[in-house]
Amino acid sequence: MWYKTPRTAPHLGRSSFQIYLQSSACMRITSKHPLQLTSRPSNSPSFRFSQQCRGISNRIYPKAAWFVPVAGTRRIVYNTRNTEIPTFFPSTVNRLRHTSIQSRNYITPNMASNLYTDETPEPIRSSKGLHLITQSTPNGQKVQILLEELKAIYGTEWGTSIINIGTNEQKKDWFLRLNPNGRIPVIIDNDKSFSVMETSAELLYLVEREDKDHHFDFTDPLEKSQLLQWLYFWHGSGAPYQGQVNHFFKYAPAPPEQLQYAQTRFKNETLRVFGVIEIHLSGKYTGQPREYLAGNGTGKYSIADIGSWPWIKGWGWSGAITKQDMEAFPHLLKWIDRIAERPAVKLGTGDAYDASKRPELYVGEKR
Amino acid sequence: MWYKTPRTAPHLGRSSFQIYLQSSACMRITSKHPLQLTSRPSNSPSFRFSQQCRGISNRIYPKAAWFVPVAGTRRIVYNTRNTEIPTFFPSTVNRLRHTSIQSRNYITPNMASNLYTDETPEPIRSSKGLHLITQSTPNGQKVQILLEELKAIYGTEWGTSIINIGTNEQKKDWFLRLNPNGRIPVIIDNDKSFSVMETSAELLYLVEREDKDHHFDFTDPLEKSQLLQWLYFWHGSGAPYQGQVNHFFKYAPAPPEQLQYAQTRFKNETLRVFGVIEIHLSGKYTGQPREYLAGNGTGKYSIADIGSWPWIKGWGWSGAITKQDMEAFPHLLKWIDRIAERPAVKLGTGDAYDASKRPELYVGEKR
Repeated sequence: MWYKTPRTAPHLGRSSFQIYLQSSACMRITSKHPLQLTSRPSNSPSFRFSQQCRGISNRIYPKAAWFVPVAGTRRIVYNTRNTEIPTFFPSTVNRLRHTSIQSRNYITPNMASNLYTDETPEPIRSSKGLHLITQSTPNGQKVQILLEELKAIYGTEWGTSIINIGTNEQKKDWFLRLNPNGRIPVIIDNDKSFSVMETSAELLYLVEREDKDHHFDFTDPLEKSQLLQWLYFWHGSGAPYQGQVNHFFKYAPAPPEQLQYAQTRFKNETLRVFGVIEIHLSGKYTGQPREYLAGNGTGKYSIADIGSWPWIKGWGWSGAITKQDMEAFPHLLKWIDRIAERPAVKLGTGDAYDASKRPELYVGEKR
Repeated sequence: MWYKTPRTAPHLGRSSFQIYLQSSACMRITSKHPLQLTSRPSNSPSFRFSQQCRGISNRIYPKAAWFVPVAGTRRIVYNTRNTEIPTFFPSTVNRLRHTSIQSRNYITPNMASNLYTDETPEPIRSSKGLHLITQSTPNGQKVQILLEELKAIYGTEWGTSIINIGTNEQKKDWFLRLNPNGRIPVIIDNDKSFSVMETSAELLYLVEREDKDHHFDFTDPLEKSQLLQWLYFWHGSGAPYQGQVNHFFKYAPAPPEQLQYAQTRFKNETLRVFGVIEIHLSGKYTGQPREYLAGNGTGKYSIADIGSWPWIKGWGWSGAITKQDMEAFPHLLKWIDRIAERPAVKLGTGDAYDASKRPELYVGEKR
């Protein structure tokens, strides 16, 4: 169970909540002390009173919790199933105490609490359903592409906000609360009051939520494992190296003689990683050339491809890797072209995510 | 469907197989040309005759395949469900043609074919069930720890082979066929003729296969997503940076003035990443301090922790990060100690994986 920020009652603000537990424990949630306990429960001897509310866990309150935003004069109660209970006043709490709630794991302050603060840009704070915070970098494009693919098949809907990572908007407190790593993109599922960081985990979250027919993943456990292996391969061995190539050739603020060793190291490592994918796509060890990274036979287009394509297609971006270098990877080059042709890939890397063409999507500091 | 190497008939050797397809296509598999076609099927007009046997796919042979090791004089047929069919001679093939097989996706040469060659060290080639190829580095220890945890609860069994990555054994052809990325550890599931690369994918494979009661992962989709987020976080943002700290401070063969910029960059980035975990464990944005990376409430020890602990506990190894640096991360330090106390963690990082103490586990070039 996830308590919701009160976006169905935006006039109440978001900075302060009260939670009424079945035991009558009354918790006040503020943006500073999200789960501060304000009154001690009378009938719960095992409860540990704590400023940080360590006592909140299924062990201690196995039955129910209601979440009551109290900013403003009106009060709304959300029960543990995120359904709205009619407006009530403090005296109503006792009546609610005996309501039976079946949900087993419903108190998850660690995941659910306070996605938003007053500093969160308004379009994000008032977002509903799925919301993407992105910039059209390779990492942003992974999620943009998958969302466009899902839209084409299922009509998936989401909102988009674009930030400028050049201004370090993603290092601000409102953003770190969604992703403590301070990186785009982030997916927010407002229906679950849940935010997801790390592009590969976001792809997996989205297919789990939306891709009911498994167009972009697999049901067979071994094919699924193969998908995960290539997702992790790129996430841990591909992107980090290619990212360093970009840094050391384009951005590093140091004289060339201090960069040369690292430049050579990361360029070579990136080419080695391209070679690993080339081995795989060429079928060197299996006799089975492949069209896509995961799946039986020649493979099936999946999030394993979506997770690496936006990086690999940009091999030329740093200027460090030449066309001649890339001639060693004919299967990889064909794979790049094969995926580039998909309409959703064109949409996910196109103008729809270009802040200069969609200024209305821009949030935070622009420059 | 996975064809098995003939470990139930070890006297036949592993270097040569014949596959009889329902269409009477006869395929010879050797270690050099894993799926070389030796005779053209008469009743399959769409079949593409190819040295590399591109034609093998579900589209073309939707019904059945038998796999017949032919080295030696005796022949054994495996049908698509890996059950043994009584010894037969070539004329029997026609009789087998009409056997009905239900399995839908059974021809998966890309995953299944030729895990081993004549160069594969014998203890690996003759391994059964789960087999681990490792060296007790942080990456090796991830999988070693999980296996020890699974053994403690379920009695999971596996074989272990240790290689010396200092001799580049993992860049040899026999190893690349198990993991084209040429990195340890690798998990082989001989029951499925399936090898798994990338530590995080290996952890997920092992819990999927062995952890029926979900001691080390989650059933709730949001908790599972949280686990994946932290697994990916460490896999993509943690290990790659800490690995570069180790390289640039300990191994890089270049004069100090050429390394300083990269040293500073990767040390700072590693400390930043430690800070991200500190934010998460301290409950800075949730008011809920945590004991483990994933899960509701204070969290539950899971493969998210196992995936990062062996790296983080070795923060001092490069000499670059000081005790004073680490004082900024009190929750992280407690987390390191908390996990270090687990018996399976001690076993998984202990003498059992020390090649000098277990010389019988050593395979490949030693030094």
